[in-house]
Amino acid sequence: MPDPTDPVALTADLIRCPSVTPEEGGALVLLQRVLEGAGFTCTRVDRGGVANLYARWGTAGNKRAFGFNGHTDVVPVGNVAAWTVDPFGGEIRDGRVWGRGACDMKSGVAAFVAAAVDFVRATPPDGAIILAITGDEEGESIDGTTALLDWMAEQGERMSVCLVGEPTCPDVMGEMIKIGRRGSMTANFTVTGKQGHSAYPHRALNPMPAMARLMDRLASHELDQGTDHFDPSTLAITTIDTGNPANNVIPAQTRGTVNIRFNDLHTGDSLTDWLRAQAAGVAAEMGVAIDVAVKVSGSAFLTPPGELSALVSRAVAAETGVTPALSTTGGTSDARFVKDHCPVVEFGLVGRSMHQVDEYAEVADIHALKAVYSRVLLEYFA
Amino acid sequence: MPDPTDPVALTADLIRCPSVTPEEGGALVLLQRVLEGAGFTCTRVDRGGVANLYARWGTAGNKRAFGFNGHTDVVPVGNVAAWTVDPFGGEIRDGRVWGRGACDMKSGVAAFVAAAVDFVRATPPDGAIILAITGDEEGESIDGTTALLDWMAEQGERMSVCLVGEPTCPDVMGEMIKIGRRGSMTANFTVTGKQGHSAYPHRALNPMPAMARLMDRLASHELDQGTDHFDPSTLAITTIDTGNPANNVIPAQTRGTVNIRFNDLHTGDSLTDWLRAQAAGVAAEMGVAIDVAVKVSGSAFLTPPGELSALVSRAVAAETGVTPALSTTGGTSDARFVKDHCPVVEFGLVGRSMHQVDEYAEVADIHALKAVYSRVLLEYFA
Ligand SMILES: [Zn+2]
Ligand SMILES: [Zn+2]
Repeated sequence: MPDPTDPVALTADLIRCPSVTPEEGGALVLLQRVLEGAGFTCTRVDRGGVANLYARWGTAGNKRAFGFNGHTDVVPVGNVAAWTVDPFGGEIRDGRVWGRGACDMKSGVAAFVAAAVDFVRATPPDGAIILAITGDEEGESIDGTTALLDWMAEQGERMSVCLVGEPTCPDVMGEMIKIGRRGSMTANFTVTGKQGHSAYPHRALNPMPAMARLMDRLASHELDQGTDHFDPSTLAITTIDTGNPANNVIPAQTRGTVNIRFNDLHTGDSLTDWLRAQAAGVAAEMGVAIDVAVKVSGSAFLTPPGELSALVSRAVAAETGVTPALSTTGGTSDARFVKDHCPVVEFGLVGRSMHQVDEYAEVADIHALKAVYSRVLLEYFA
Repeated sequence: MPDPTDPVALTADLIRCPSVTPEEGGALVLLQRVLEGAGFTCTRVDRGGVANLYARWGTAGNKRAFGFNGHTDVVPVGNVAAWTVDPFGGEIRDGRVWGRGACDMKSGVAAFVAAAVDFVRATPPDGAIILAITGDEEGESIDGTTALLDWMAEQGERMSVCLVGEPTCPDVMGEMIKIGRRGSMTANFTVTGKQGHSAYPHRALNPMPAMARLMDRLASHELDQGTDHFDPSTLAITTIDTGNPANNVIPAQTRGTVNIRFNDLHTGDSLTDWLRAQAAGVAAEMGVAIDVAVKVSGSAFLTPPGELSALVSRAVAAETGVTPALSTTGGTSDARFVKDHCPVVEFGLVGRSMHQVDEYAEVADIHALKAVYSRVLLEYFA
């Protein structure tokens, strides 16, 4: 039985579980064993071929429940020959723990597990500690944290607040807490006209000018100027493809894609409406048909600066000596699901090596992270 | 020895020569044999792997020389299983001659050869008849009619006027003479920015908005409103391709192509200058690099209505009962090269089956075409 209060050893143990999405890889089994050993009630909430672990110490009822959220699944190793360490070796050397998931985010999970076990042993709280750990964050994220939250709703289980342990610091440990994330969506446009000969364009209906005009309009539009807490929303045309090799042929169809990262002035629905209206306008002007297929992969979320972010900020400053910025930059995380359940912020390690070859975490940073989480729990239940 | 004055038998004989560009296939050898038998002086003007035949009856000197131009090469058969006749069989059935090149344009060559042989036998003219026949019209057209014209210039040989025997009638024999053709050019644009992540567009330089804007501007621009003899010039975007499958990636580069069909208000050079200026403008606005590669495949040409077109019109009306329109529509032909040498017009069969499966020519139309050409020669030298 590993020592559940040593976050570095636990990180190394977790790295040795090859839990590339959607494989459980032994990681959640290991965590369930150590958490049950420390008095947590554990439930596997598996769904759609992926594994998730729900662990609770204490009972919530009308009491306060502090939640942690994280994931044990990792992205693939990629070119294994490029690694100078065993990606699943969990080697500790030169003050670092090495391997896939060392940074994103087996260390984060190990740190909150270690902090939680320490805390309930030393200071059993008047309330509950909930660890919602998923094996499906790096994949489709359909049956991961969402499955845990669905199950909690059915069971009447609830977190009062939640701290997500993703790596949040760009360069220096302690420098950034995420209090929100921009949303992300992708729209695929298919413009259909009528094929013909380049010498007789009036007998054809070229879809290309409509695609060019639509894309120019979308890319030229200022979605907003940002907010107090968010950068301006952005729209990127990621591709236009037609595949017509013949200069003397006007093609029948062309496809284009845009990706939008949006702040809390927008929703997936509001932007979908806007995109459809733009497409309909160009379709009417140019006489072509434009099909729009939208996939919203995450809504924007913001937990406005307040008690929770202040609590985490104080703990970070006390343990690292760095006053963290409250940020909403970066890609998406499972906090986009948790935000519909309770206030949520994110704090974790320096993310520089995430998804890279020779991924690692600083041993000192992992200890500091456990210390931050411990202090958060202590203050929260004080 | 085939009868050189029977244009239908000669068409069938030529179809039996499998002269898919760049193969000579025996077609020019056959023509040289019959023309030399009729007193023509023949010279093979081969260049760059393709064969061409120059045949002259009489001497030019200061006298008038009537020229015919045509090609014996044909486009590939395509899916041979789709044919209901032998593409190289030269079968005569149901009042039609069948096979690849029956329409475009072994019949046209046979008709002017037959008319020329008849004419010099019956009414030896005070001047010359020149037949400039190429084996490279359907291919790159670099070493075809151009090679013949280059050789003629070196030899001091000259046509006073030239009639190209391409099929020119859309539906009904006799309905259309071409007195010009629009030019054609293709421009390839490569827009280069800097790759990046869709979540951080300010760290990347997306080439896509510049491509969209450039293409929108080019397609929206009215090149002209046409002239007395020409339709308006047209620009068709034929493709835009990027090949970026990742929604979260901003691509480094994208490529797009436009094809322009232009009338005699423009030249390849003037349009190239315009395209480069447009690209430079967008590149400056958007901070990207835009490479422009232009290929001009044919300049616009016009032989203004005059003696030559009137001569041919009268002959067409007399032999077919149809008064032909003087048109500049359609793709390019070798007349675009001849126009720098002498006045040139085009008249030939109905082109409906050209380049198709089961290509054919009406026997009656081939006879009518020979009659038109005979009448043109008679009137020209009268
Ligand atoms: Zn992660
Ligand atoms: Zn032709």
